[in-house]
Amino acid sequence: MEKEKPIGVFDSGIGGLTVVKRIASTLPNEDIVYFGDTARVPYGSKSNSTVIEYSIQDAKFLINKNVKAIVVACNTSSSIALKELRKQFNVPIIGMIEPGAKYALKETRNGRIGVIGTRATISNKAYSTEIKKLNPEVEVFEKACPLFVPLAEEGWIKHKAVYDIAEEYLKELREKKIDTLVLGCTHYPILSEVIQEVIGSDVKLVDSGISSAESVKFELDRIGLNTNKFSPGNQDYFVSDIPVKFKEVAELFLGREVSQIQKVELEALLP
Amino acid sequence: MEKEKPIGVFDSGIGGLTVVKRIASTLPNEDIVYFGDTARVPYGSKSNSTVIEYSIQDAKFLINKNVKAIVVACNTSSSIALKELRKQFNVPIIGMIEPGAKYALKETRNGRIGVIGTRATISNKAYSTEIKKLNPEVEVFEKACPLFVPLAEEGWIKHKAVYDIAEEYLKELREKKIDTLVLGCTHYPILSEVIQEVIGSDVKLVDSGISSAESVKFELDRIGLNTNKFSPGNQDYFVSDIPVKFKEVAELFLGREVSQIQKVELEALLP
Repeated sequence: MEKEKPIGVFDSGIGGLTVVKRIASTLPNEDIVYFGDTARVPYGSKSNSTVIEYSIQDAKFLINKNVKAIVVACNTSSSIALKELRKQFNVPIIGMIEPGAKYALKETRNGRIGVIGTRATISNKAYSTEIKKLNPEVEVFEKACPLFVPLAEEGWIKHKAVYDIAEEYLKELREKKIDTLVLGCTHYPILSEVIQEVIGSDVKLVDSGISSAESVKFELDRIGLNTNKFSPGNQDYFVSDIPVKFKEVAELFLGREVSQIQKVELEALLP
Repeated sequence: MEKEKPIGVFDSGIGGLTVVKRIASTLPNEDIVYFGDTARVPYGSKSNSTVIEYSIQDAKFLINKNVKAIVVACNTSSSIALKELRKQFNVPIIGMIEPGAKYALKETRNGRIGVIGTRATISNKAYSTEIKKLNPEVEVFEKACPLFVPLAEEGWIKHKAVYDIAEEYLKELREKKIDTLVLGCTHYPILSEVIQEVIGSDVKLVDSGISSAESVKFELDRIGLNTNKFSPGNQDYFVSDIPVKFKEVAELFLGREVSQIQKVELEALLP
């Protein structure tokens, strides 16, 4: 039955596990199939055409797993490939940008919103375009923070270097007197303590994973595709590579033990 | 004529340009064809099987460009895929590890050598195995420094955070009283000033690009394949992706202007 199919979630790597964590807590009875393209990670430092090509392959993998909806749990991919994905695939596709933009608009009191993300997400102005479409009066300040991804993957959560780097990246946004900051990359919630400390405790952080999970719930409700089950949902994890230290980092991101992870051959993804 | 064919050089991305710089200065009349797999970079955080698969595809691309020898200008790939590449391709294949190991042995006075590299290079113990094969009396201390690659690519050469991170990574090696440190990743020469300062001015740094360039010269001399030309060699650059800020970073690595860069479709690499 259509309602009992799993929700598909994909990401360039393991950052999307922070989104799976949010979806599983918002929709605990839904089955989830996750695909992380760890053989080609990261996407955030690559070109638009490459990101679109990879995203289509990732979505196709999930479609073949018979999913009822696809969550693009990668801000870079959401900011670049969403339109193309919606054109090619006939299931609801939920990205990170629209939900995050709406949530930020609900939070801001002074109409000054900051957005941080990968170089690709920021150079595409994905969040500022979306936010200004919803409310042209708001001012949006964007800043790429490329080093936050490797720092999170290294598991350096509160190291002195993280403070130095956050200080360098965020001082500009602090000067702009923003009152809301969108964490526009799924890796960033891992560093949220340091980010909060450096940007100031009066600034509200928006975790794009939380708003996206809410959006998935809303969408399934709207089209009547939520599961009827009352038992806890199953989660299946697929990745295109399993490097050294993978399990350790995946568990940091997911916030609990990861049991079965299956490796997919890259050839299987290609057209 | 065989002698007038170009030397092929490949790397996971742009780090290998520091090696091209060394080859071009050691062998200024040789033509060079460079391939950087920027669509799938980095290799250093990926698994052995994935690194071998990608390396074979990269080498095949160069073979199709009719090269007379291949330089594996990537320590990760050299440490994992060299044997397989030599099995599959019938041209001289020069890696980074053997030349770097020999050079380090020539430099050390106290028989205590440090090696830094990516997680993949270090976990494969490539350098320590090679060094101990040549001289079992020497002690080798290895340390993975995953954040050095993104720092170099971000162009943060002397930022305070680089000192903090270098301090964290290198303190262990300093305590071991090494007198020689192999920079076992082609990105690291970009950060050599900070590395030298943190490890101490009495420690000799070994740039694996320099020793590899010497080794290419030696090999071409040995088999009589050096060019007869007296004019400056041509350089052709191919990459699998051209992301934002690419030219800027490539020029930092190469140490001069990069003119023509050609993009290769990923499909063209696949078997």
